[in-house]
Amino acid sequence: MSDSEAPTYPKLPRNTVNRYGKPRGKYDYESIHKIVNTVQVLHVSFPAPNSDPFPAMIPMLGFMASYSDQNAPLTEPLDLYLHGYISSRLMKLGSTSPSDEEEGLPLTIAATHLDGLVLALTPNHHSYNYRSAILHGYATPVTDADEKMWAMEKITNGVLDHRWENTRIPPTKTEMTSTQILKVNVVDASAKVRTGYPGDDRADLKNEELRAKTWIGVVPTFLKYGEPVASPENRVAKVPEHITSYVKKENEVGEKNALIAVKGE
Amino acid sequence: MSDSEAPTYPKLPRNTVNRYGKPRGKYDYESIHKIVNTVQVLHVSFPAPNSDPFPAMIPMLGFMASYSDQNAPLTEPLDLYLHGYISSRLMKLGSTSPSDEEEGLPLTIAATHLDGLVLALTPNHHSYNYRSAILHGYATPVTDADEKMWAMEKITNGVLDHRWENTRIPPTKTEMTSTQILKVNVVDASAKVRTGYPGDDRADLKNEELRAKTWIGVVPTFLKYGEPVASPENRVAKVPEHITSYVKKENEVGEKNALIAVKGE
Repeated sequence: MSDSEAPTYPKLPRNTVNRYGKPRGKYDYESIHKIVNTVQVLHVSFPAPNSDPFPAMIPMLGFMASYSDQNAPLTEPLDLYLHGYISSRLMKLGSTSPSDEEEGLPLTIAATHLDGLVLALTPNHHSYNYRSAILHGYATPVTDADEKMWAMEKITNGVLDHRWENTRIPPTKTEMTSTQILKVNVVDASAKVRTGYPGDDRADLKNEELRAKTWIGVVPTFLKYGEPVASPENRVAKVPEHITSYVKKENEVGEKNALIAVKGE
Repeated sequence: MSDSEAPTYPKLPRNTVNRYGKPRGKYDYESIHKIVNTVQVLHVSFPAPNSDPFPAMIPMLGFMASYSDQNAPLTEPLDLYLHGYISSRLMKLGSTSPSDEEEGLPLTIAATHLDGLVLALTPNHHSYNYRSAILHGYATPVTDADEKMWAMEKITNGVLDHRWENTRIPPTKTEMTSTQILKVNVVDASAKVRTGYPGDDRADLKNEELRAKTWIGVVPTFLKYGEPVASPENRVAKVPEHITSYVKKENEVGEKNALIAVKGE
């Protein structure tokens, strides 16, 4: 599918990528949904209560999917599900059921992959390679028991593939009520992606003395998963395959993505 | 210095860690400043213009230090410096010089290290090991030329140690004016730190059948720095020592921190 045909989020003033918007800004569903679903930690921001001038911000777990169309690919419209606890500030706000006039709690969600340090001839051209998505949407608590269970499975498997079916399931009634899931109806979003080598100014590139002594290039970066460490309470001798294969796969994908960010596919 | 003597940020309703606040919440300068100064990317949130309900959020570079006391350790009061561009939305807002009644632009800043995946017997006890700091403060643009240059050096060396002195410095006049630095007067902050193994319920730990088939423990995680990739424009044959030693040191520190988070010092 060409870029112009790809389904996209609306481009509003608040989600338009201004600086370097032409090469780096993206609005298509697939780019944005993929960034969210491959990041371990999201940063969620929302207006603070009691007219406090500082927005609240919390690191959270989440994923994007469609409960009504569970096999929907990343190119389709998806909802964002967030995992939290009833006692937290966010969930308290989110659990006041929205009136007809309200659409839920307005949230801004950020998902960021750091792909490399970009080292240029001059301090000003130093940069990062990164894939970053910012989403805006209205959050309401998931009350349907089946949808909540489905979301809990997805969130557990978002920490580590196939983990849900390798634990004691289903959750007890107490576990179900003590966990809260927020569903975010995403209204707009954008991604910003920086790839490639440093882009220095022509004048500096003509300075052979400078170039002779200044190494330029990229240090690739990615999230590394180390050797699993068993709990003193663990009774399983061997680290199971669903864990070792996830660690192996994620390390390969992480390293590969960081290199693709520099050199291309 | 004991915890009770350590200098701390004030504990206000907006920065008090509620859930698991007793074991995980921290308010001392050193813990918070150290998290900020060891993370590559900060997430910065601020109230959106034009009564937009969604807070704005931007990934940014920054560091904490004191310009008036440049050798101040992390245990002292420090300011947060952020790097941005005059053309961006944040900088536009930040550059409206505050009136006597205003203290600057209210910002919420998050710094998060992911230290590991915590795999428990039940989905509900799955968690992350992490070190996360949230700071609140008022931002104003740095106008003093010397302070700005000092901050630019610190920010460049925050990307990679000793990088500043290994590039073409000082920046030109144009480079100085096209770069903007925000100084944040931090008014309160907190950190939340999760360490250790999974904490399962007594009932599940008594279930020997469950324990016989469910591996529990932690998969350590850290930011990995890969082999530096030279730009096609690079003219330096060998990757210089300031880069190779940084890569080596950061990988060692990252792995060590992730293991300390599981097993302790």
